[in-house]
Amino acid sequence: MSDLIQPKVLKGFRDSLPDAEILRSLLVEQLTSAFRSFGFVPIDTPVLEYSEILLRKSNGETEKQVFRFEDNGHRDVSMRFDLTVPFARFVAEHKDELYFPFKRYHIAKVWRGEKPQAGRYREFYQCDFDMVGSDSATSDFEILSLMKTALNTIGVKKIHIHVNHRGILNALLEKLGIKNLSEDILRAIDKLMKVGIEEVTKNLNDLFAASGETSAEQIKQKTATILDFIRDCGSFEATLSHMASLAGEGAKDCVERMRQIYSMMQASGIDAAYVLDPSITRGLDYYTGVVYETFLDELPSIGSVCSGGRYDNLAGLYMKEKISGVGSSIGLDRLLAGLEQLGLTTAKGSFLDAEIFCLDSSLAVHYQKVASVFRQNGIAIEVFPDAKKMNQQYQVAEKKGIEWGILIKPEEAQKNVLTLKNLKTREQKEALSIEQACALIRRQ
Amino acid sequence: MSDLIQPKVLKGFRDSLPDAEILRSLLVEQLTSAFRSFGFVPIDTPVLEYSEILLRKSNGETEKQVFRFEDNGHRDVSMRFDLTVPFARFVAEHKDELYFPFKRYHIAKVWRGEKPQAGRYREFYQCDFDMVGSDSATSDFEILSLMKTALNTIGVKKIHIHVNHRGILNALLEKLGIKNLSEDILRAIDKLMKVGIEEVTKNLNDLFAASGETSAEQIKQKTATILDFIRDCGSFEATLSHMASLAGEGAKDCVERMRQIYSMMQASGIDAAYVLDPSITRGLDYYTGVVYETFLDELPSIGSVCSGGRYDNLAGLYMKEKISGVGSSIGLDRLLAGLEQLGLTTAKGSFLDAEIFCLDSSLAVHYQKVASVFRQNGIAIEVFPDAKKMNQQYQVAEKKGIEWGILIKPEEAQKNVLTLKNLKTREQKEALSIEQACALIRRQ
Repeated sequence: MSDLIQPKVLKGFRDSLPDAEILRSLLVEQLTSAFRSFGFVPIDTPVLEYSEILLRKSNGETEKQVFRFEDNGHRDVSMRFDLTVPFARFVAEHKDELYFPFKRYHIAKVWRGEKPQAGRYREFYQCDFDMVGSDSATSDFEILSLMKTALNTIGVKKIHIHVNHRGILNALLEKLGIKNLSEDILRAIDKLMKVGIEEVTKNLNDLFAASGETSAEQIKQKTATILDFIRDCGSFEATLSHMASLAGEGAKDCVERMRQIYSMMQASGIDAAYVLDPSITRGLDYYTGVVYETFLDELPSIGSVCSGGRYDNLAGLYMKEKISGVGSSIGLDRLLAGLEQLGLTTAKGSFLDAEIFCLDSSLAVHYQKVASVFRQNGIAIEVFPDAKKMNQQYQVAEKKGIEWGILIKPEEAQKNVLTLKNLKTREQKEALSIEQACALIRRQ
Repeated sequence: MSDLIQPKVLKGFRDSLPDAEILRSLLVEQLTSAFRSFGFVPIDTPVLEYSEILLRKSNGETEKQVFRFEDNGHRDVSMRFDLTVPFARFVAEHKDELYFPFKRYHIAKVWRGEKPQAGRYREFYQCDFDMVGSDSATSDFEILSLMKTALNTIGVKKIHIHVNHRGILNALLEKLGIKNLSEDILRAIDKLMKVGIEEVTKNLNDLFAASGETSAEQIKQKTATILDFIRDCGSFEATLSHMASLAGEGAKDCVERMRQIYSMMQASGIDAAYVLDPSITRGLDYYTGVVYETFLDELPSIGSVCSGGRYDNLAGLYMKEKISGVGSSIGLDRLLAGLEQLGLTTAKGSFLDAEIFCLDSSLAVHYQKVASVFRQNGIAIEVFPDAKKMNQQYQVAEKKGIEWGILIKPEEAQKNVLTLKNLKTREQKEALSIEQACALIRRQ
């Protein structure tokens, strides 16, 4: 007794019980089918890698969160904390075996030793899809289009994808002579949706003041230009023209890229789902071209459920060749939480159509015979294995969300008939042949 | 330059490139559909657990192989090395949230720091399915039946599942007064298929001699009885009767259980796939009832691809209640290797039906328009993003195993027609509408 070990998972970790795991696996299957239909292929990489490979580029914050240790062979190893760094290593290692453009999806667990808090876990899924080896409007558009298709496929229809191009803002900053502040400015702007315009104004003013600008007029002017630049002008095209006019000649190629992408959206009839949003910058050094975030119309407060952008040097740590790419990442846990909040998930306790109840254990062999015929007819069915009280048997069927119950008494077994019961309506039909029962179950 | 990190995976680990990962994911999808159709539900558990939980029951050999470390919170943690121990912990921790009998499948990675060797990796998949909370012929049979269905579903038709019941042998050993040697005897017998009858005879003689038996006649007699017991008598029923007669009254319940299971196999018309094989014992303390292994008829040398049995105390380390169960495990990597050797896998480079080649990048928007219509018609299609040399574009399509190419020149774009090319036969048809092209692609 005192010898028992208390069964418990580690802090920040969790089990996935059947209902949750069924939901998650259905979601993953639907996303997978969308990725595949656009020509993306799956890859996998090891959970453990050399720490040198995973952590070289990371900042101290990441490093503190990583599960890192010395293995039995005295190697310094770490568990992956994202799918991007392993993908970069993968592309560099296998570049001669792959073909380009290369389009991969990868849905897998990653680990971070963050302080556990509501909705944050130390083990969670990432779902990434990237196309590398082409710097074209076609590949930018394909990722953007797939984002919409993937979310639509899982039943999320009311979304808007906010798109921007970092090059246009960079051209503006160049023109204003404040390119050196670009990272800070990007960060300040990116918070617009979260903190509102007043806070952003204050942050920008502070930023220009801290940078050595002493003229109050100049500070005001610069802030005003930035704020004007990130203004929504009512339509994709109007906003783009406005941005282009402020940013000037230096933004020409980037503006043209955005025009092309928008033309593709229109030609495919999906433009209504996209918003040109100059305040989206993705606060990461990594991105160099288009960037985007996706919000649920009915639940914008949970933040972006699918984000990404274009980067121009995926694997620079591992090889000389520059490989440009564009990719996106779905926050599976956040999305699942959002879907549940919106009632867009259908709970499912199992994948069964029917249950053969055990009325009499002497009929166990007969029940199996009947089950095999149902299965041959494409019905997913199980046999309750013990002659437990009927209440208990019904309860299991209910937990598993099974719609049909099959009851066979000895005299029915002899005549090779059965009673079919709808477990929701409680209606039942007696003396059916298996074929008749199959037909009724299929009709539902 | 000198600053580049060499991109490489850890010793004993490997990447999964698209062709291999597509194969693996299709295999997993098919197995999953079989599990679901029998009422099994998925669960998931954390990759990391308290070392105390994972390792309490393990022997020194396992412990040496485990990836074990102290996390940042000074907890002694380990990466799971199988799916059985976490399942036991899971059932004990959630017993009040679950229903019984509980049927789960779990397909996931596990880690063992074994010496890497041909076909052995430190990270690999396990695929387990178990039914716990019922000790009945029905549940034994259901696992056995599902093993056959699952393997058939992935295209493996020529298999034999070797079944035995450990209780019958135990009764025999009890009768012979050598129950104390049962573990060693089980181990000796279990090697029959690997080492042959002569080696087993020698091992048994040595074993009885070492146990203190001094009469050469007695040693010979005991060995002869064991060898007689594990003799194949030509049919399931004949072998069972033979075993029953040797084992005596003490084996009665176990023999009856086997008869019931066999009746279910017959009633379901699948008995030809099963062999009663008294030499199968599964050299593990863990199993207490039926045990089984599965061999490919055309490739028995790779060993069992699906094995398991009944255990009577799944979670004894973590709770007082005894939970009996029966389960099986598919060796995914071994099975995949076997399928490839037998030519039973169909390599697939992608899930695409067609590729729109880029003949003229000024048509990029038109290509997207055409692609969106194909997709609306259920055709999986991608657009080549850059106007690369046609050879290069064809090569990518070939690597991805795409059957149909779509070529659109400016004059065709204007007339809204296209050229459809079969990339295998090289035949092509010109001036087709998208609808005509869809019809041709679907007909294939």
